[in-house]
Amino acid sequence: MNIKHSIKKNKLEPLFTQAIFGIEKESQRILSDGTITSTNHPACFGNRNFHPYIQTDFAETQMELVTPPLDKVEKVMNWLAAIHDVSLRTMPEDEYLLPTSSPLFMPHEDDIQVAKLDNEADVAYREYLVDVYGKRKQMVSGIHYNFEFQPKFVHALYNNEQTDESFKDFQSKLYLKLAHNFFRYQWILTYLLGASIEAKPEFFKNEERPDDIPAGLIRSIRSSKYGYVNHDEVKVSFESMETYVDTIEKMVAEDKLIEEKEFYSTVRFRGGKNAREILKNGISYLEFRLLDLNPFAEFGIAEEDMRFIHQFLMYLIWIDEDATEAELEIGKEMNFATSFENPLEHSSYELEGKAILNGVSDMLKQLNLSDDIVQEKLKAFDNPELTLAGQLALIYNQGNYIEWTIKTAISNKEAALERPYALRGFESMELSTQILIYDAIQKGLHIEVLDTEDQFLSLKYKDHLEYVKNGNMTSLDTYISSLVMANKVVTKKILAKNGFIVPDSMEYHNAEEAFRDYGLFNNKRFVVKPKSTNYGLGISIFKEGASEENYRKAIEIAFEEDSAVLVEDFVPGTEYRFFVAGNETKAVLLRIPANVVGDGTHTIEALVNMKNEDPLRGKNHRTPLTLIELGKIEQLALAEQGYVMTDVPSEGTTVYLRDNSNISTGGDSIDMTEEMHETYKEIAVGIAKAMGATFSGVDMMIPDYTKPATEAEPGYGVIEANFNPAMMMHIYPHEGKGQRLTLDVLDLLFPEMAVKGDQS
Amino acid sequence: MNIKHSIKKNKLEPLFTQAIFGIEKESQRILSDGTITSTNHPACFGNRNFHPYIQTDFAETQMELVTPPLDKVEKVMNWLAAIHDVSLRTMPEDEYLLPTSSPLFMPHEDDIQVAKLDNEADVAYREYLVDVYGKRKQMVSGIHYNFEFQPKFVHALYNNEQTDESFKDFQSKLYLKLAHNFFRYQWILTYLLGASIEAKPEFFKNEERPDDIPAGLIRSIRSSKYGYVNHDEVKVSFESMETYVDTIEKMVAEDKLIEEKEFYSTVRFRGGKNAREILKNGISYLEFRLLDLNPFAEFGIAEEDMRFIHQFLMYLIWIDEDATEAELEIGKEMNFATSFENPLEHSSYELEGKAILNGVSDMLKQLNLSDDIVQEKLKAFDNPELTLAGQLALIYNQGNYIEWTIKTAISNKEAALERPYALRGFESMELSTQILIYDAIQKGLHIEVLDTEDQFLSLKYKDHLEYVKNGNMTSLDTYISSLVMANKVVTKKILAKNGFIVPDSMEYHNAEEAFRDYGLFNNKRFVVKPKSTNYGLGISIFKEGASEENYRKAIEIAFEEDSAVLVEDFVPGTEYRFFVAGNETKAVLLRIPANVVGDGTHTIEALVNMKNEDPLRGKNHRTPLTLIELGKIEQLALAEQGYVMTDVPSEGTTVYLRDNSNISTGGDSIDMTEEMHETYKEIAVGIAKAMGATFSGVDMMIPDYTKPATEAEPGYGVIEANFNPAMMMHIYPHEGKGQRLTLDVLDLLFPEMAVKGDQS
Repeated sequence: MNIKHSIKKNKLEPLFTQAIFGIEKESQRILSDGTITSTNHPACFGNRNFHPYIQTDFAETQMELVTPPLDKVEKVMNWLAAIHDVSLRTMPEDEYLLPTSSPLFMPHEDDIQVAKLDNEADVAYREYLVDVYGKRKQMVSGIHYNFEFQPKFVHALYNNEQTDESFKDFQSKLYLKLAHNFFRYQWILTYLLGASIEAKPEFFKNEERPDDIPAGLIRSIRSSKYGYVNHDEVKVSFESMETYVDTIEKMVAEDKLIEEKEFYSTVRFRGGKNAREILKNGISYLEFRLLDLNPFAEFGIAEEDMRFIHQFLMYLIWIDEDATEAELEIGKEMNFATSFENPLEHSSYELEGKAILNGVSDMLKQLNLSDDIVQEKLKAFDNPELTLAGQLALIYNQGNYIEWTIKTAISNKEAALERPYALRGFESMELSTQILIYDAIQKGLHIEVLDTEDQFLSLKYKDHLEYVKNGNMTSLDTYISSLVMANKVVTKKILAKNGFIVPDSMEYHNAEEAFRDYGLFNNKRFVVKPKSTNYGLGISIFKEGASEENYRKAIEIAFEEDSAVLVEDFVPGTEYRFFVAGNETKAVLLRIPANVVGDGTHTIEALVNMKNEDPLRGKNHRTPLTLIELGKIEQLALAEQGYVMTDVPSEGTTVYLRDNSNISTGGDSIDMTEEMHETYKEIAVGIAKAMGATFSGVDMMIPDYTKPATEAEPGYGVIEANFNPAMMMHIYPHEGKGQRLTLDVLDLLFPEMAVKGDQS
Repeated sequence: MNIKHSIKKNKLEPLFTQAIFGIEKESQRILSDGTITSTNHPACFGNRNFHPYIQTDFAETQMELVTPPLDKVEKVMNWLAAIHDVSLRTMPEDEYLLPTSSPLFMPHEDDIQVAKLDNEADVAYREYLVDVYGKRKQMVSGIHYNFEFQPKFVHALYNNEQTDESFKDFQSKLYLKLAHNFFRYQWILTYLLGASIEAKPEFFKNEERPDDIPAGLIRSIRSSKYGYVNHDEVKVSFESMETYVDTIEKMVAEDKLIEEKEFYSTVRFRGGKNAREILKNGISYLEFRLLDLNPFAEFGIAEEDMRFIHQFLMYLIWIDEDATEAELEIGKEMNFATSFENPLEHSSYELEGKAILNGVSDMLKQLNLSDDIVQEKLKAFDNPELTLAGQLALIYNQGNYIEWTIKTAISNKEAALERPYALRGFESMELSTQILIYDAIQKGLHIEVLDTEDQFLSLKYKDHLEYVKNGNMTSLDTYISSLVMANKVVTKKILAKNGFIVPDSMEYHNAEEAFRDYGLFNNKRFVVKPKSTNYGLGISIFKEGASEENYRKAIEIAFEEDSAVLVEDFVPGTEYRFFVAGNETKAVLLRIPANVVGDGTHTIEALVNMKNEDPLRGKNHRTPLTLIELGKIEQLALAEQGYVMTDVPSEGTTVYLRDNSNISTGGDSIDMTEEMHETYKEIAVGIAKAMGATFSGVDMMIPDYTKPATEAEPGYGVIEANFNPAMMMHIYPHEGKGQRLTLDVLDLLFPEMAVKGDQS
């Protein structure tokens, strides 16, 4: 089939340029001296039996980070960032991820702990590998690049082809062609991206560096014939799916391979559990396994290299040729030879390399796409020091290799820890959703972002699928419970009917009407206030009830400020937010209006600026706390207390910049979960239950949180119950212990996982 | 206690004027000849074992309509209207409710069917009554007026009183005082509101009219000593709760009463199952039982009379006096005497009556309330023909009494049938909520309107409580399922993942970008359209795919209309709305844009006006269909088809006034529930399930609704799934059978009631 022709004729360019990608990246966990750690895979990562993103490879210390299949390179990079954030923040404090493929110091065989997997067959397989190849070779890490053409593209190609073949056979042949040509030209990737430059004796079974490896540095030990290759007796044909299946099954039957997956190859067919199943199903995608970790890229592979490899793969089916079995062998040998080259010397196959890259460039031009990346790669043929191995060799030759590698590992970890309340790769979403995704990655739920702007996720564990919006809008709440909470009148009626203490409130639109109702408030504690409160103006609080004269005066004062006046039961105390999840109050928070505490030296303005230096404070809900502003509203609030911005408050004096305590206007959040008396937490649960809610933010006024609530003295008044309650202010409070509510959400959604039980 | 003084001193006026009311109204079901029907209580009214609103009294034909306790007279009137709408519309077509207390024709004893109740004790009690009083006396109907002071008022009175009494005793004494004074002055109500003017011989056991009844008409046979009174030997003391309990228990012990409830009294204490329990709990409210049906009031009692009685009751505790046991007896005798008076003659106690009413008037003035109603009642003392009995007597004397009564019964029923899609008393709510309340009343659910503007109800059956908003937003749907349906992108992703046929759609913001993607649509059926459709302008439909040239042209045309252009898979067929409830598609609807069909004679304008005469068409969502307008949009739509308003379309030609098929812009709704092939209904259920929805309005395009959907030829495309789907268009379609979806809502909410199973 002439694919280039079919693409052009049928205008398939937009489909041809689409694809589905997935990355698997192995990394050793190391200590700050560069040695491999001896700790177990952290328990906090949930269970390796099902974890889709964070696994162990050969050794217990060798993490395998896996992205889901994604239809854009950017998305893969985002996922890599996120999985790295989760891994690096969850690992022990003194551990780092080694950015290079080869360990800096190869541990003694006895100190290498094979991954502690539950599945006996998995363990047995690893033990077999130890016998055949030795442990140390298995300690080298790499990147696997999974690649699938957009299925619509393959269908469109098929539909435009005059063929009697089945679609499945057509598709398999397409991927076979890609595999053949990849084998033929893979050396180009090794030249450009090879990055395991040392061939240390400890790497080899008997600590003997083979003679045929050139002295000094090489491009890639991992892609060399001493890397992941089978013994010479293993011969598998890639000519067709049939010959592939026949030959690989023969190898296993003849005990040359213990099982099919022992067959190491830089390309692996995917689409079934074993070769025969793939033959039946057809090849659905390919796994390219020859990439070394790129230590210059924070996540082991650079975005432009992902794109370059994509363009390279497109080109391999764009061209007419389909490498023969003999050419495959040539390609493999060229790859081995390239691996052994001195990183700072030109490629032996420079001409072919340039020809191929120029072909890629030409294809991109025909597709109206930029060839900038290919042009960069072309330069690396003229300048070997631009290749990854070349760059590393320069560092090595300066004697800084180990130091540089450790520094890189440390700085990668620092980058992951810099904004612990956010998740790189998902930073355009709300913080609470970022943290929920973080926890879901950590625990091993399958995550799909259904709508970024709408904070819409699907989470899956085995066959159990749940949708989540805005962090805690889920199937655990009923439609009507959110509507009950959204309606303050209905909420009050239901709470009162269920026996909770709800302050009464009456609204008046003229003074006469309010005067007439004095009897309703007589002998009661109550507050008279304008409906729209405006920095406390016009509010009268009667903590002991009021004479009619004072009542009338208060009504008149309030009407001076607004055309509607409320007379409400006075509820003494301080307002607390209770975050209820299921049958428990999981967090209690005290919110204090934006404030500074004087030190007798600094002005209010200076104190605000100092407080704003807290990295948890920011703007636009992208940090857990908010910068205190010094605008009109703040200045009005200061004036109420008799201050201007340039005043210097005395030591210990608290000055408020706001009347309202919202975190979004600079308020402080103080965790009170431990301190709050249990009885109030139970009341909050009861309130959520009366609303029919699983997740609810219950606001209560409580005069003394240490004194138990009793029937005779309830000690609280409910202000409101909120659906989709904020979580970040509890997770990262200004003061006190953070409460990881996102884990509670996952725990309630997936009780079968025992999410919280897994926490270390 | 001096209540007037306490009210004034403590400014309790606003609390004093509040109260809680409930009405019980008995009515005989009659035929259009005025005779009592012989049919059973309709099965459609659910089960009398628990029905809170629609019961039977003594006879099977005697309906008892009961309002819940309500805190405003208007609300009681609304509930009476609603319960009457339900009763009258549910009753057999040829039955009516008798508007007078006394039957027009007294049936033979043998033809009176005692109510067929399940409870044996209830039946036995009625049989006992037959023995002691005869059946016929029990056939007279009346109104019971339940009255409770605002509990806050009683508490406030108590708190302001210097007393060692318990609150319970204090409250009981207050109601005892009210009862005492009521007995003393109840004759005033009989004078004003008595309305059972005949004392026909057939009313009496042996068809002998006692001699002591004056000849001719009287004010009230029901309130007379031949009405609901016990035999003379029954003596019960009302002096205190203790004496009441002692004496009534003595009567039962001595077999003078078969049980406590046989004690007929115009006032009954409420607050417990029997007298002793009331003694323990305290009296919580009173039931006044002496009112005849007011045949001039559509629902048996006039709103101003409800208010007048309230004012009268307030006055009875406002005054200092507390009638003694001897005065009670005087009061009862005065009431009997008043009952026997000629309706057109002055009261024998005119002076006392006027004095009391002037007292009420004076009280109202002191409370700053209008005394208009009392002034009207005062006039009736000067003009006996203004009393209810007086007005009836005038009709009677003209010889029109029976005819007038039957006519009134028929016109009351007609009023209830006039707008069958609405529910009087709740007409400020949405139609679907009105119909849901209608069905809930019919089936006997306890209903509370929590928020009228927000269409928020609570429904209760036994201990099972459910909240409903906007007709079908309930606990049966999850919070997230509504959010899934609200997000069209997420909906499409989920539906596609679940294997449903969802048309693809791409959005472009410039032509170049769209041109490049030609390959995505090549060889496909597709539609190019401006994002905001505007009467079909700029839309190109390619039912056979398009050449690149035509594609580009279509893109350019679309961009002339809008800055964003969509290219969507073309889904052939007609759009249908599937209403899914639980596991079933309960209704299928075809919506046709506003249209008229020509007759070769009338102009389009005239045809529209004729079509708008359908009483189902109206404005503001207060009718099931909407008036077709003739505004700019309609004229544009006409112009598209080459018409102006004054054109006369030929016979049978359909002319559309709109491009969109919304019912809210005058569209026609055509029920297709029976016609639609079952396979599509199953697909709609599957779609709702994929959304996690219980209630969903699924819109599908279907080319041939008679042809089954198969895997090979699905025969549909999903457009969208809607949460809180409209119901009225299915319940009252323009054409075809209405589907009572509100009953399905109740059926799913209360499966234990088997709501739909009850339907006759």
